[in-house]
Formats: sequence, C-alpha cells, structure tokens
Amino acid sequence: MSAPRGNALIGQSGGPTAVINQSLVGLIEGCLAAEPIGEVYGALKGIDGVLNENLINLGLESPADLERVAVTPGAALRSVRKKPSHEDSVRALEVLRRYDVRYFFYIGGNDSAEAAHLLNEVAVEEGYDLHLIHVPKTIDNDLLETDHCPGYGSAARFVIQALMGDNEDNRGLGGVKIDVIMGRNAGWLTAAASLAHWGEGEGPHLIYLPEVDFTWEGFLSDLERVYGEYGRCVVAVSEGIHTPDGVLVGEAKETDAFGNVQLSGTGYLGDRLAGKVRELLGSHVEGKLRVRADTFGYLQRSFHGLVSEVDAAEAREVGRQAVRIATGGEVTSGSVILVREEGSEYHIRYESCPLSKVAHETKSMPPEFLAGSAGVTPAFLDYLRPLVGRIPDHGRLADHPVPRRG
Amino acid sequence: MSAPRGNALIGQSGGPTAVINQSLVGLIEGCLAAEPIGEVYGALKGIDGVLNENLINLGLESPADLERVAVTPGAALRSVRKKPSHEDSVRALEVLRRYDVRYFFYIGGNDSAEAAHLLNEVAVEEGYDLHLIHVPKTIDNDLLETDHCPGYGSAARFVIQALMGDNEDNRGLGGVKIDVIMGRNAGWLTAAASLAHWGEGEGPHLIYLPEVDFTWEGFLSDLERVYGEYGRCVVAVSEGIHTPDGVLVGEAKETDAFGNVQLSGTGYLGDRLAGKVRELLGSHVEGKLRVRADTFGYLQRSFHGLVSEVDAAEAREVGRQAVRIATGGEVTSGSVILVREEGSEYHIRYESCPLSKVAHETKSMPPEFLAGSAGVTPAFLDYLRPLVGRIPDHGRLADHPVPRRG
Repeated sequence: MSAPRGNALIGQSGGPTAVINQSLVGLIEGCLAAEPIGEVYGALKGIDGVLNENLINLGLESPADLERVAVTPGAALRSVRKKPSHEDSVRALEVLRRYDVRYFFYIGGNDSAEAAHLLNEVAVEEGYDLHLIHVPKTIDNDLLETDHCPGYGSAARFVIQALMGDNEDNRGLGGVKIDVIMGRNAGWLTAAASLAHWGEGEGPHLIYLPEVDFTWEGFLSDLERVYGEYGRCVVAVSEGIHTPDGVLVGEAKETDAFGNVQLSGTGYLGDRLAGKVRELLGSHVEGKLRVRADTFGYLQRSFHGLVSEVDAAEAREVGRQAVRIATGGEVTSGSVILVREEGSEYHIRYESCPLSKVAHETKSMPPEFLAGSAGVTPAFLDYLRPLVGRIPDHGRLADHPVPRRG
Repeated sequence: MSAPRGNALIGQSGGPTAVINQSLVGLIEGCLAAEPIGEVYGALKGIDGVLNENLINLGLESPADLERVAVTPGAALRSVRKKPSHEDSVRALEVLRRYDVRYFFYIGGNDSAEAAHLLNEVAVEEGYDLHLIHVPKTIDNDLLETDHCPGYGSAARFVIQALMGDNEDNRGLGGVKIDVIMGRNAGWLTAAASLAHWGEGEGPHLIYLPEVDFTWEGFLSDLERVYGEYGRCVVAVSEGIHTPDGVLVGEAKETDAFGNVQLSGTGYLGDRLAGKVRELLGSHVEGKLRVRADTFGYLQRSFHGLVSEVDAAEAREVGRQAVRIATGGEVTSGSVILVREEGSEYHIRYESCPLSKVAHETKSMPPEFLAGSAGVTPAFLDYLRPLVGRIPDHGRLADHPVPRRG
C-alpha cells in the first residue's frame, strides 16, 4: 500500500464545538506539510459542499487568519446534518475524482463517521484509491473506540464552571436549582458536573443520567434527603433522562391541573422538573420553597473564549495525526482515536480504527462510572480530570461566629 | 460632623453577581485599615442575619482566604430578598446598638438600597450616630445616579462571549436563533449583546429591549428582512419585553393550536418566540426552517471564572471607597456612585449620593442609546466598551473559491 499523489479535501459536519476549528487548522497544517498532497480544499457545508462543488482553497489562507480561526468556536467551513444516499455518495465520488482528491477528511461525530463510511464503501466498490479519515469531534463524548472526543473537555469545563457558580448562587439564596445539560443518548457531559463538587455539602448534589432509569419517586426521595441535610439542593440532569419504560421525561406529554396538554419545548424538561418539585417537595418544607431551572442549551457547545487547554491542543493534534495516518501507507480509511496510556501521568497516543466501528454507534457511560441513582464514581472523576484544563480557584469565608450579646 | 469610634457590619442582599465578593473583600480591607473602626462583622443572609444576630467576625479571616473569596461568584455572606418592615428596622437598630456598630455597609441593588434607606431613617429618628453606606451591585445595571453598576461588566462580558459563539453556531447550521437575556425592567444586559456584533451580516442581528414596545408584526417583519438578506438570524431579547398594552410577552397566557392554555415557565418566552417564528416565518422560506431558543438564566450572573477585569477591580474599589466615604466625616449615609470623567480615556471617580435617590428606583436605557425597534446606537457601544474587559479574538476563513471543474 502506498500514498498516492493528489489533492486533499476537508469537510465539517454535525453540531459544532468550541475547538472543532483547531482540528480544521491542524488538518490544513498537516496537509500543507505532507509530501504527496497537492492542493488543500475545503467543502462548504460538509457533504453538501462536495455535491454542489462549493469548494474553497484552504492553502491560500494566511497563517495569522488560521490561528484566529482555530480559537473561534463553530464550524469555519459551515456544517450540515445529512446522511448521504447511495446516489449522493456516487455523485460525491465523481466530484472527488474530478478534482483529483485522494485524501478526504471529515470532521464530525458518529453520524459524520457514517457518512464517511458510506462514501468510502463506494470508493472501494469503484476501485478509486481514496484515503478517507474521520476526525472525531463531539461535546457528547459518545464515540466508540476512542478514550474521549475532542470538544468534550471544553464543553465539560463550561459545565463545571457553570455548576461551581450555580452552587454559590444556590447557597446564597437557598432552594432547589435544576440544571438541564446536553446529551440525549449518553450522560458524559452531564456527569462532568460532578467535578464542580469540591466538598461535603457542595453542589451538584444529585446527577441524573440517561444511563440510569429515572423515577419520580426516586428523584423526590433523593431531593428530600439532600434538602433535609443541607437546606438546599443543586441538581444536574441530562436532557435524555427517561423513565423505565423508555419515555423521555423531557418529551412526555402530560396534562396539567386543568387537563390541558403541556407541549414540550426547549425549556420544557427544566420547567417540568421544577413544577413537580414545587408541587411535591414544596408541601413538605417550611416556608415557600424557591425552585429554579436552567437549560444550558447551545452555550455548552459554542461559548466563545472558554476552552480546556488540553482539549484545544488535542483537537489540533488530532487533525495533524489524521494526515499522518492518511499518508502513512498503512490504512486507507478509518477514524482517529485517542488512546490513553497506562500510568499515573496523563498521556495520549493517536491511532485509527475502522470507520464501521464508529459509524452511527453511541458509547454510553460504563457501569464502573455510575454510582447509584444519582451520582458518579471516583473512577469517572479520575477519567475526567485531565481532560478539562485548569479549573478556577474558589474560596469560602471561615465564618468565625461572633458571640451573642442578646 | 465626625467619624465615631465603633464597629462595622457588612451584609449582602439580592441576587449575587460574579464580582460581589470583590466588594465584600474591598470593604473588609477598608474597615481593617480605618482608624475609627474596631471590629468588622458580617451579617449572614443580609438583614435577616442582623435580626437573628447571626454575625461572623470578618477580621479573623486570613488574607489568602479573602483573595480566594474575592474571585468566587455568589454572596459569600449568603443573601436574602427582604423588605424590612418599620418594626424590623427598629429591631435591627437595637442589634446594631448592642454590638456597638457605627458603620453599616449593605451590598445590593435598588431593593437593598431601599432596605438601607428604611434602616437609616430609623437611626436618624432615634438620633443614633450610624454611618450607613449602600454599596452598589447588580447585573441589571439599573441603579440611578451611578454611571454603571459593579457586576454589570462581567455579566455583559458573559453575554457578549455567548453571542459571539452563538453567531458562529448559527452561521454553521443556519436558521433562526433566539437568546433570552435577563433584565426584566431595563434592557442594559440584553443590549450588551450588541458588542458581539463585529461586522456586516454578523449576529446579533436584532435586539429587543423592554424600553421599546414589542409587536409581533414588527418582530416578524424584522426577521423576514434579516433572514432574506443573510439566510439566518440571531436575536437577543430581554425577558422583560412587552406589547404596547404593557403585557409581558413571557408571561402572556395564550392558547395553542389545540385550544390548550400554555403556561409560562423559565423557558416559556424563548419557546413562545420560537414557536411563532416557526409558524409564521417558516411558511415563507424554502425548506424546513431551523429555529432554536436558549434562555441564559442564572449562568449570566453566577458563572465561575469569567469576569471583566475592569469590573472586578471596580467592584473591589467600590468597597474600599465606601469605607472612605463612611469615615470621611462629610456624609453619614448614601450610596456609592461611579462617575465617569469626561475625555477619551476611561476614568472613574467614586462619590456618593443620598440613599433616597437610589432606593427602589430603576434606571432604564435612555433614548440616545436606543436605535429603532431592534437595535442600539454607537453611543451605547462607546458607553459599554470600557466596562467589559478584553473580548477574545475571533477569525474567519477568507473563503478563496476553487474554480469549478464541472
């Protein structure tokens, strides 16, 4: 097997992250330095840009512009959510052939890996020598095979700093605070909230993940216990929690006290949980119970100017490594994976795995990371800590009491 | 008038900010250095801590702990939302007398200024020599007399970085994005989103404030114009927008397509606006219109580890200056105000104004800062720019087109 001479094409697909453009710039750097690669093209809006021949010449971008692009969230090449049909893949391959593209890099999550896999199968069928590498990104951290996904560490850091602040806010005014966090099929990002917990009695006190069945009885009994102990409670909850029958709590249709159907919306899950807490816990506690809910929404994946330094560096490197793999002569297709080395020091090496192993699949949190109905294990914290970068300092007054003069 | 010898007491009240503890630490520093001040006490949960004699000795805190407290959001002394009755104020004054408190500092917004004002009136009636200073904080920036409020710059910076990222996210995948921002009675924080707009065609494209009547016709015609021009639209909207009859859009009860009543909740305004856009604009545009809404919620005021450096420094200084004013011998009560010096360089001096001028009142955005139905003026941007600190770099690809080979 050898590395053919030809041009490279890069596309971005799916939801953006805070560091996806680091991978783009890493790819451009890698391609410009790779001996067999000629021109470096970008497809605007992923596979749509290929089908529409909407291509740009990334080799003409200035290094200074590229550095600024690298620190900007969102997809610099614009994105798309599209599963190409077989016909699309055949047409896309025609375009690659016409532009003498021998290296195709697709940055995205499991759906993007699937699109890449479908295109690759057509290339193999037609005997076209295409080197096709999927470059992983997702805040959901739900790709199989890889230790973790570029984009996750930065989103996790956002969640941690949000929860640290929320814990202080809740401590200041009391009550119950519910934070709804992204991740419909896997709880990785919601679970990251656990690193905000820095001591006994601090929030988040409860963490609900899609990996564990949610029950109203369990939720309210957890809440009563925490509220009874600390007089307040901070809850981190995944948008994907579901009851044992598989029904999403955030999409369930239910009737309100007037018999009217409540329809789901962006804020629905948070509002629904808050309403239940007010109704059921509110009647047990003294005074008026303060209950608030926030849904973190797109801020988690797109906030500008807050990244994990480790995540940003790895996202850059995963782009460079994709080119190394594509031109190394050993594999013609695959997904880049991050492999964590054994040992106490955090160290990552980059390898690849077959596209079919990543395409379309979702990696849930394993049982050894889950603790009871509403928590995570120390093993998960050890896994997460190196990924999120420097967490800011926090402090508390020592609260030396003044003797009463009453 | 002179500065009596006696102890000092500090309380925090109302919603926390990212820098409210800077003011607390500035006050402690100032009190410890002030010749006439003996002990420095803190009241836990504002006026409730006074009434319950729940006091701590802040003079015993270590300087290292205080520095860590200063960079932690939320109210380190815990907070309360309470308008004291006349009887409460009489009882609070008894407590102050018993602990020989001659200096009382209350950190908060306009409601806290009112509480301070009520307490001060009782002290004056009873001829008790109390020096009472309100130390301003609020992310809403809605206090009268002062140029701006400590806490605003950091919240504004959060909103700006959120909108910068959201603009990229929206550019990547297209459609309409609606961001609901805090500020029920005044639009200052929502208007800060305007600094995220860095060039022609970039978001936020539309900004709706409580200072301007909101109409559905105007909103949809604005949207159609922007969407027609750029194929996408980012909207920043205050939670306090209302129709010309004064009805809050976020609290209006309306029936859905099935005749069911939709009830308001945290995410209600965003969901309502998104629903209308889908229904009314969606029918005019090609393909399926992607519409998303986020409600920034408590993240705006409590996010840990993201502040405006200027805001943090001013919040600290306003605490120190409060002590200077209280012990200066010229005034016995007042609210600290920030006065912006004339000239091209940003420079602030600290003065005080009577409590009655700040108590309970709200400062709306003045007409010279408002542009049309959905924007702000360059004068507002000039006002805002020095307050928010360093905004992160951003970059865009130059998009050099590749000639078609089709």
